[in-house]
Formats: sequence, structure tokens, C-alpha cells
Amino acid sequence: MDERIHEHAQILTGWSAQIESGDNVVMSVESGAHELAVAVAEQVGDRNANLLTTYASGEISRAYLRAHGDDFDADPAHALSLYENADVVLSLGGGRNTRATADIPSETKQASDTATQGVREARLDTDWVSTVHPTRALAQQAGMAYEAYQDFVYDAIIRDWERLAEKMDRLKRRLDEGSEVRIRAAAGTDVTMSIEDRTAVNSAASVRYDSHNLPSGEVFTAPADTEGTVVFDVPLTYRGERLQHVELTFEDGRVVESVADNEDVLQEILTTDEGARQLGELGIGMNRGIDRFTDNILFDEKMGDTVHMALGRAYEACLPEDRQANQSAVHVDMIADMSTDATIEIDGEVIQRNGQFRWENGFDAE
Amino acid sequence: MDERIHEHAQILTGWSAQIESGDNVVMSVESGAHELAVAVAEQVGDRNANLLTTYASGEISRAYLRAHGDDFDADPAHALSLYENADVVLSLGGGRNTRATADIPSETKQASDTATQGVREARLDTDWVSTVHPTRALAQQAGMAYEAYQDFVYDAIIRDWERLAEKMDRLKRRLDEGSEVRIRAAAGTDVTMSIEDRTAVNSAASVRYDSHNLPSGEVFTAPADTEGTVVFDVPLTYRGERLQHVELTFEDGRVVESVADNEDVLQEILTTDEGARQLGELGIGMNRGIDRFTDNILFDEKMGDTVHMALGRAYEACLPEDRQANQSAVHVDMIADMSTDATIEIDGEVIQRNGQFRWENGFDAE
Repeated sequence: MDERIHEHAQILTGWSAQIESGDNVVMSVESGAHELAVAVAEQVGDRNANLLTTYASGEISRAYLRAHGDDFDADPAHALSLYENADVVLSLGGGRNTRATADIPSETKQASDTATQGVREARLDTDWVSTVHPTRALAQQAGMAYEAYQDFVYDAIIRDWERLAEKMDRLKRRLDEGSEVRIRAAAGTDVTMSIEDRTAVNSAASVRYDSHNLPSGEVFTAPADTEGTVVFDVPLTYRGERLQHVELTFEDGRVVESVADNEDVLQEILTTDEGARQLGELGIGMNRGIDRFTDNILFDEKMGDTVHMALGRAYEACLPEDRQANQSAVHVDMIADMSTDATIEIDGEVIQRNGQFRWENGFDAE
Repeated sequence: MDERIHEHAQILTGWSAQIESGDNVVMSVESGAHELAVAVAEQVGDRNANLLTTYASGEISRAYLRAHGDDFDADPAHALSLYENADVVLSLGGGRNTRATADIPSETKQASDTATQGVREARLDTDWVSTVHPTRALAQQAGMAYEAYQDFVYDAIIRDWERLAEKMDRLKRRLDEGSEVRIRAAAGTDVTMSIEDRTAVNSAASVRYDSHNLPSGEVFTAPADTEGTVVFDVPLTYRGERLQHVELTFEDGRVVESVADNEDVLQEILTTDEGARQLGELGIGMNRGIDRFTDNILFDEKMGDTVHMALGRAYEACLPEDRQANQSAVHVDMIADMSTDATIEIDGEVIQRNGQFRWENGFDAE
């Protein structure tokens, strides 16, 4: 077995999920993630925790959901009690076909999701962590050869997370103290937003930081009163459709102009509800192991030298207790490259230029 | 997908497990049984039952158990509650290596089994059914080519079970009425045993008959006071060791003489405890879809035109309420061919000759 699979399993069970002796662990395995599951099982055993393994197969879900009517029982007791009695849920993604569930009717999927909301909430109440095993299907989606994709995934995951968490904490503190962020980039971006009274989240791929994805590596907050224009030059996939060259102009916090190569898809997002025209998130990607777009948001939005902004729902954790976060049925992350001719300012001070932070070697003060 | 996989799934969910709308179903999938799992998921959805899929991988068990110490938590709450809240548990066997767990220390396996006895009992309290998907690993163990093995498995499973259940019921009633069985075969078998007051079980591969294996197809009871000699001419594997040409002689119900090619293995069985020298089961194989030995007891003991007798533990269901079944830590099934020069008599009447029953066409009355 590739030694990196063992390292991945160690980071997942140790740093990310912080599994302790006696923990009841549910490990969910996608059909292509078998090898990682074996390595993780070894770690769970080594930590004297209790393992139950579930099988998350897109083909099984598809067969079940298509055959079932749209009338689902609410929160079946066997699934609900499994998660209610779990301390940790590890989801090992990595299918053999990323489009395996493409022909499940969306009403069926929605009806099933709605009926099992309690099961999902019980799962989110655990110390859950989602990660991904590099499969050929994911390599294909990324437009990469299999071995190159494996290198890409392990570069993103096998990092000194403790050190990165300290670095990210520095940015988090700066954002927490600040009032206004201004982002400029040569592609045409010049935008300001308020972060007054907001609390940034240090997403360091560990339940210790309330961060549940491995890889992670971003600091994010919930901005307000956005003004100006942003060009998102990294493509994204929304409900199976490619969205590219998005340009949004904001006034009083709301999108007033929008352009994109696939304008219909962008309009579908913006007209979802009132909250979809406002930003729910400003995220700053800090994982320099991720150096390219691979059409997988788990990786893309963490890319070093990028920022992303999400239209729609904001995270409550970023707001003061008496203030409500932006509400919306959508949360669509869009990414902008910051590696050249680009700056991030907080209250007039440049804290990042061309991807380098003020406190890093190589930062160009002017 | 091979149409027989769909038929297998229909028989499993319909005839065997009798799944109804609203049932909470746990489907356990071995690593090679994915295709069957997809077909079963479709059936479970079609019946409006609630599906949760677990992954039963020998490689995952091995990694977990070897890394874990021998001190296991008793009945972890997440696993226990899953089965306590399940109505049906379907186990889809079919690994990719039948020896995947060969190097788990037996003490570790035992310690784990002992600690999770409550979980196992909760599972056995459901309408559980175990079946097997034909994999290359199982074909190899059977000494067969893959396609030929697929044919073999589906011939055993895709049957008119309702009709077979009626046939088997005829034999069951005859055994229930009878007092003494005599079995003779050219290989040297001539043995009598009492079945007075015993109740035979019609093992028709359905929870309706309290029969939990698919395929099945045997009628069995718990005999007493065995006298005479039996030659078991079908080989078997006991704890990884081949046992062949076993000849046992009984007096007053106990083995007094024994011969085998691998005498040590036979002695290990016979000296396990007091109950290991007595018969716990007489089974009559009635599944004529199974026409050869494949080194898999799930199939071998159901073979048409055979009988099997088990040394050791008897099933309580076969005895009157006030009588205790033979107790033993072992239950080792051994098989004898009855297709030529062989008879089964009940109270002096020949009910089977050369594999044909008295009530079948082709039965030779003399």
C-alpha cells in the first residue's frame, strides 16, 4: 500500500477527528475508497475505538431512490439511532463514477433529504470529518492522469496542519480586529465589504477548530455591505453545469449587475431567493498544496493564493449572537485568483500582495 | 447486469426476507458483492422499506482487529442500537479473497466476538437472511471457472422455493411421525438413530420457515441413541484443514471408533467436549440445484441426494420443551452421498432409495 495512504489515515483519525479510546466511530466508505478504509480501520483499532463501517455507493443510492416512491418514512429508527450513538463519523469519499447519481429525479432526492433531516442533524452533531481518496473517476473529473492526481491529493492532505493552523490563526485575528476588507486584482476586481463585529473561522481541518473537511486550509468570515466589482476567473460547476468568467457588481450589498459565459446558470442562482443576491462568505484560501483547479469544491476553495466569495447563506458562527446571518437556499462559492497583480487590504493596510501575506518572507511592502 | 442477479435479489427480499413497506433494513455488503447489492437496493426501494448499507470487508476487519488490543468494549451503543432498531438484516457474502482474515490471531477474534455478543443477538433477533454473490474468490475455492461457478450458484438459488417447501414439508411430516431412522449406503454406512418426539425443521430459505440461508433446501432434526457405522464420502474443511474419508462408529449414541485421512483434525473435533462425540443433527439435502461439492458449507450440506450428520450442538427447535438439546462448543457437518446403492428408512419403510423419495416419480419400491 502507498505509504501516503497510511499518512492520510493518521492525519484523519488524529489531527482531524481526534479519535480517543472508547469512541464509537462510524466510517462511511465510497466504492472506490476501500484502500483508505483499510488504513483508517487500522488507526481506529490502534486507538481502541469501536468501528462500524457503512457503504456509501452512488449506484446503490440510485437503485434504491429510483425504485422508491417519493413518500419516504421520516428518520428511520435504525439510521437515526446509529448516528445518535456515534461520537465520530468519518466519510471517505472517492467513487468510481462521479456521475453515478446523475439520473435520480431531483424531487426524489429532495423528498428523501427532507424526510431524513433528523438523521443528517444527528450526524452533524458528532465529530464528523469528510475526506476523499484519489480515484480514477476523480482524476478524470479533474482532467488529470491518475498518478498525477494522487500526487495532487496527497500534497493537499499531507501537510503540517499544526503549523498551518498557527498561520491561519494570524489571519483570523487580523480579520476579527478589522472593519473593512478591500480586494483588488488585475482582472478587474475592486470590491470593499464590511467585516465589523464579524468573527472569522480558522478552518484547519480539525474538529478542534470546528473544521470538518480534510483537506481544508482557509479562513472565512461573513461580510456585509459589499460595494464594487469582482471577477471570478476560476471556473465552477453548479448542478452539473460549468460556470465561467463570472463578473458581479454590488451596490448596498446586493448584486446589481452580472455577466457570465453561461448567463442562464448565473441567473438561476441569483433568482433563487432574496438572500442569493448577497454575499454569505468571504474565504481566503491558504492551502498551498492545492495549486490548481480540479473541479472539486473540497479542494478548489482551499487553493493557496485565491479568495472565494459565496452568494447566499452565511455561517451563523461568523456573526454576533444577536445578529442573523444572511439566509438563502443556496451557498455558491466562486473563486478568484490572487497570485498576480492582486491585493487584499484590511482597513487600508495591504495584508496580502500577489498571494504573499504581510508576515511572510517575500512580502513586497509596496 | 446479468438478469439472474435481479432474480436473486427478488427471491432474497421477497421469499426469503419477506420485506414489507416501512421495514428498517440493514444490508451488509462484502467487498465482492457490489452488483448484488445494487439489485437488492432496487428491491428494497420498490417495497418502500428503509435501507441502511454496511460494508463487511475482511481486509477492514483484519486491519482493525490486528491493530486493536484484545480488550474490546462490550456491545458498542452505535452498533447495538442499529440492530435493535432493524427489522431485517440481509448479509450479502462474496469476498475477493476467502482467506482475507487468515492471520487475525484467534484470541483476538474470540475476544471481539465475546465482547459483541449482544450485538450479534440483536442481529439474530431480526428477520435476517445470509446469501452469497458468486465472486472469483469463491469460484477459486470451489475449484471452478468463474462462469461455471456463477451457473452453479444461480442453479442453487433461483428455484421454485414455494414448490420445494411443499416437497420438504412432506418429508418433515414423515420424520415428525416416525420413531427410528435407518440409513444404509454401499460405502459401508449402516446406522440407526431415534427421532422419537423430535420435530424436524423445513429449511426452505425463508424467515417464514425460520430458515435464514439462501440457498437452503434441507430438512433436519436432532437424533438420539445412534448405533452403527457411517462413512462420510464428501470432504469438508474444518478450521482451514481438509477432512476426508471419515468413518465413525457409534454405540449408545456416542462415537466409539473413528477413522479419517486427516486423523488429527478428527480427534481435535471429537475431544472438544463430551457433546462432540454425539450427533447434534441429521440433515437431508434436498436442493437438486446443488450437484457438486464446492467447499462451502452453505451449499454443500443442501446438496440433493445427500445426508449430513453433525457432531456436537443440536438445535433446540427440534426437541420437546422439557428436553435439553445436545450441548457442545462445536457443530461440524459431515456429508454422505446417497445417490447410488443407498436407502433411508423410517420405521422400516424405505422413504428414499438412491436419492429418489417414495412419493416421487421414478422411485424404485424394491
